[in-house]
Amino acid sequence: MAGSKYAYVKAFELPDPILPNTFIILRVDGHSFHRFTDEHSFHKPNDERALALMDRAAIDLMNEHKDIVLAFGESDEFSFLLRRSTALYNRRLSKILSSLTSQFTSSYVFHWHEYFPETPLLFPPSFDGRIVLYPGEKEVRDYFAWRQVDTHINNLYNTTFWALVQTGGQTTTQAHAHLKGTQSKEKNEILFNLFGINYNNIPARFRKGSVLVRQEVNGQLDRYASDMASEGPVILPDVLGHGDHVGSTIVRDSPNAACPPTISSSSTTAYPSHNNGGIPESPVRKTHKSNPRTVVRVLHVDIIRDDFWNDMPHILSE
Amino acid sequence: MAGSKYAYVKAFELPDPILPNTFIILRVDGHSFHRFTDEHSFHKPNDERALALMDRAAIDLMNEHKDIVLAFGESDEFSFLLRRSTALYNRRLSKILSSLTSQFTSSYVFHWHEYFPETPLLFPPSFDGRIVLYPGEKEVRDYFAWRQVDTHINNLYNTTFWALVQTGGQTTTQAHAHLKGTQSKEKNEILFNLFGINYNNIPARFRKGSVLVRQEVNGQLDRYASDMASEGPVILPDVLGHGDHVGSTIVRDSPNAACPPTISSSSTTAYPSHNNGGIPESPVRKTHKSNPRTVVRVLHVDIIRDDFWNDMPHILSE
Amino acid sequence: MAGSKYAYVKAFELPDPILPNTFIILRVDGHSFHRFTDEHSFHKPNDERALALMDRAAIDLMNEHKDIVLAFGESDEFSFLLRRSTALYNRRLSKILSSLTSQFTSSYVFHWHEYFPETPLLFPPSFDGRIVLYPGEKEVRDYFAWRQVDTHINNLYNTTFWALVQTGGQTTTQAHAHLKGTQSKEKNEILFNLFGINYNNIPARFRKGSVLVRQEVNGQLDRYASDMASEGPVILPDVLGHGDHVGSTIVRDSPNAACPPTISSSSTTAYPSHNNGGIPESPVRKTHKSNPRTVVRVLHVDIIRDDFWNDMPHILSE
Amino acid sequence: MAGSKYAYVKAFELPDPILPNTFIILRVDGHSFHRFTDEHSFHKPNDERALALMDRAAIDLMNEHKDIVLAFGESDEFSFLLRRSTALYNRRLSKILSSLTSQFTSSYVFHWHEYFPETPLLFPPSFDGRIVLYPGEKEVRDYFAWRQVDTHINNLYNTTFWALVQTGGQTTTQAHAHLKGTQSKEKNEILFNLFGINYNNIPARFRKGSVLVRQEVNGQLDRYASDMASEGPVILPDVLGHGDHVGSTIVRDSPNAACPPTISSSSTTAYPSHNNGGIPESPVRKTHKSNPRTVVRVLHVDIIRDDFWNDMPHILSE
Repeated sequence: MAGSKYAYVKAFELPDPILPNTFIILRVDGHSFHRFTDEHSFHKPNDERALALMDRAAIDLMNEHKDIVLAFGESDEFSFLLRRSTALYNRRLSKILSSLTSQFTSSYVFHWHEYFPETPLLFPPSFDGRIVLYPGEKEVRDYFAWRQVDTHINNLYNTTFWALVQTGGQTTTQAHAHLKGTQSKEKNEILFNLFGINYNNIPARFRKGSVLVRQEVNGQLDRYASDMASEGPVILPDVLGHGDHVGSTIVRDSPNAACPPTISSSSTTAYPSHNNGGIPESPVRKTHKSNPRTVVRVLHVDIIRDDFWNDMPHILSE
Repeated sequence: MAGSKYAYVKAFELPDPILPNTFIILRVDGHSFHRFTDEHSFHKPNDERALALMDRAAIDLMNEHKDIVLAFGESDEFSFLLRRSTALYNRRLSKILSSLTSQFTSSYVFHWHEYFPETPLLFPPSFDGRIVLYPGEKEVRDYFAWRQVDTHINNLYNTTFWALVQTGGQTTTQAHAHLKGTQSKEKNEILFNLFGINYNNIPARFRKGSVLVRQEVNGQLDRYASDMASEGPVILPDVLGHGDHVGSTIVRDSPNAACPPTISSSSTTAYPSHNNGGIPESPVRKTHKSNPRTVVRVLHVDIIRDDFWNDMPHILSE
Repeated sequence: MAGSKYAYVKAFELPDPILPNTFIILRVDGHSFHRFTDEHSFHKPNDERALALMDRAAIDLMNEHKDIVLAFGESDEFSFLLRRSTALYNRRLSKILSSLTSQFTSSYVFHWHEYFPETPLLFPPSFDGRIVLYPGEKEVRDYFAWRQVDTHINNLYNTTFWALVQTGGQTTTQAHAHLKGTQSKEKNEILFNLFGINYNNIPARFRKGSVLVRQEVNGQLDRYASDMASEGPVILPDVLGHGDHVGSTIVRDSPNAACPPTISSSSTTAYPSHNNGGIPESPVRKTHKSNPRTVVRVLHVDIIRDDFWNDMPHILSE
Repeated sequence: MAGSKYAYVKAFELPDPILPNTFIILRVDGHSFHRFTDEHSFHKPNDERALALMDRAAIDLMNEHKDIVLAFGESDEFSFLLRRSTALYNRRLSKILSSLTSQFTSSYVFHWHEYFPETPLLFPPSFDGRIVLYPGEKEVRDYFAWRQVDTHINNLYNTTFWALVQTGGQTTTQAHAHLKGTQSKEKNEILFNLFGINYNNIPARFRKGSVLVRQEVNGQLDRYASDMASEGPVILPDVLGHGDHVGSTIVRDSPNAACPPTISSSSTTAYPSHNNGGIPESPVRKTHKSNPRTVVRVLHVDIIRDDFWNDMPHILSE
């Protein structure tokens, strides 16, 4: 890029390093997704395909960047925690922000047809990203608690709202009015009394969002495998063994769900990283290596209380 | 996003407004495109399909954001100039940087199959972005001159290098050695003496990159229509009239080039903006409106000398 | 500062370069000066000694930093314009901000006794500073116009207010109530009708603030020498020829003022810069060099209209 | 500042908030102090008056800003730690940086004559400041360790260097050559063998710098009172009881020093804060209040090992 008499303009590119040893969280949010979900007929109140596609894009990003130690997704947003001491792109803010948001977006579009095989993508969706820094472990935990509380609040509202509309026959205006000013307890009662829905039986994915962690294979998977079962159904796209049909079969990791016959409930439905030089594997090129060292697991568990963090001490300590 | 005791973490999101009335340039660059182009067998030294796809993603971005008044692309990079007084996203740096890079990426993946109908996308490509600010008009002109000089230098080198390899039978190592230390004049002579190539007859797209401007229909198009002809062949993908085959037909906008028979030389091959609420049109949904007010034109013209800027005074004055 | 195992903490010092070729304005403001002026019995509505001391600190700063091409002061604030292309401290924001604010403060305290020989300084006064960037000449002109309009508004109000109190016998509460909601015209009428004061005859220093420019000796001084006369009395502390009494004699650069005999109204009442290696001269050490190249002039002239800027084209063009 | 058509220029003042809950350290450094110390004939290798004046300016700053919980000074620099959660000036970087640097500078000039009663200040000295952020307690401790190691290295070098020159009769060039490449051990041996100086008997102020802490009166002072004794002589200017002679009497807080009779080594040689509305007390105005709540203590103790921090847990925990 050098050489000409015009090269002086490069001096206007200013440095933007992030403070060392500070936690970096990137949050991507769908841009104009209200319209995007309408145009693509997303299911209400939750669209499992869309959530699984979000998870998939997040998994790709975590496989590409080993310094992402935790991710949390809900609706059309995903948050990524980079380990405190990461030297990714020399901690340049714009580089991290733009590259990771771009990679997430690209994966989302790239994998769309696997999760929406019967819904052509009508126009290119996009995401905006922001980076937030946290100096301490407490703030990081509270950040993720903040997002999961948000998931709960939104999902309870949306579940009740759409029950009133879809089953109760209310207009959306009526449903809004019905719920105005209600507390959580009242929404739970509406769900149970009017529609026979026990909110706690709703899939954990919807109630708790997606928690993505990196784990060593043959490592600490067992505890969370059983946790997930006890938490309720977990929906995981199975990319390991189905070649071209990746994502078009949905894995229900729940013992008592009405599962399609092709589905296993095994806790091994995780996303291996093949260390192939930084390019995330695409399904059609996948060659099973014998010993992937780590996998990205998709959990739908509580991250507000201490248990999760006690079980995953490496997340905050690295 | 509010409400819980954790919401205090939102206070860590710091403002990042860009200085008012300063020119904003966003440059996106392909991430690890050396590998990406190898894996997808891009033609050397230039792949028209790839360049046209880059143009297409840039056109989508300009149609989405009317405050982009100029764009310039070469190889796997594209620069976008926002008008000086833009209030896009309240001039928040991270929002502009991440959203526009994401939108560009999304369009690139979305339109891939139109430009590479026989080459499946093997993995999701991505781009990084950076924002550079310029206080004055002179620096903006010099920025674009810097990029176009870069285009020339790279293309002359690559054209000569690949002639030595593809036609001359040299290994890449030999070709590198052959060109080491050579000046432009010597490369031109190699091309002409060894391979009978007059560099100036190489398509303007390769020599000058792509210059995207927004113009009113029935406006100032005529001059550049003839300019382009005099500059040499201009390659424009025709997305207006060919439905699903967009991009697979190449428009050569030059009267005397050796054009494939399917090609029209009409200067109307521009990209209309339908003002459809911010969502760029995708080909399959396109409904021709009778009077698009502005179109994005793809030119392959000199932007170093004064002529271009004198003809487009609005670019720097808005 | 290197060497030990603790030196890694230096990596937390982040760069903060200012965008090249952008105008830099530093504005310093007195910190808690309401109390400071009360404790030191400043004259109301204007204290010439205090204003002259502010000018003196500003002159020292301009003599120290030749890249300051213009300064404007009123009340307890002063603005300094650095030439567009300055490389002072490599344009590091914190370094420029802190050093210049510190130097201004130091000069203010250092010279206090010269301007307030009978008023001991009771506690150390301080200033805060801020840096504002402007991309273009128009904004710079408008910045200084903004400050001078502020000077006018404040001075008209204060002059009328203190006339009501000091001469009219009103309490401050009554005077506030009297002026509430009044326009400039009404304040002028109050001054003239009640107190026989023609506002335009008030010293230009109070009405227009202090405009500090650097000029070559034997250069363009003549026009402003006469301008100043026509603008009304100009108060300049004479530091050139009076040794220890600097500042205790007031130079009135006005043909009809009652001037002390030692005072000339010539253009030599300016502040020479002796290029003595960056240390501003203190009066007691001053050795008159024969040919100072430039001097800092203190003017009290209009900087809103074009005349000033047309006469000083170098200010914005460097 | 509002009202006129020029007020739009205020929009160019951009926000610069510091990340919440992050430690803020301000370090001020003397500007061109090599020349300043020469012109004012500072004693070599250490000038007690100058160091005590630095302490005094730092004490004023700590009395003005209760959120400064620790300060460390050596030579012509001082570092100030703001408590992690400070809301000072809404954590605006420029405001904190410029105000505190200005206040420090002002106090330095203001108190000069008390510490250098026989040396007139020849020109106004100044300081530059920088703000560095640290996310965690470890980095803060390491920052201060870094500075104190620096104190040790510089002081050992300077002590040996000036012994060679002042006592050994070497030129400065010879002394530099003599010390080139020497380790600490060798410098200690030079001092002891050639000049009979046991480095550990040099005053702790020179070896360890000044550590300023805020303590409640009748609080934890005892331990450090005795610590200081064991560390060696501590030099404190006594501003409490000597009216106009502040600073011209030196308090040696050492059991075996030849103390003036009026001086006690008690813990009362501290700097009370009178909470008088933000204006630091000047000696001449001082009215002794009966119960100052906190005092700033000047210590010359080790801050590298754990003891200090264990004794002062509030410094990092607030």
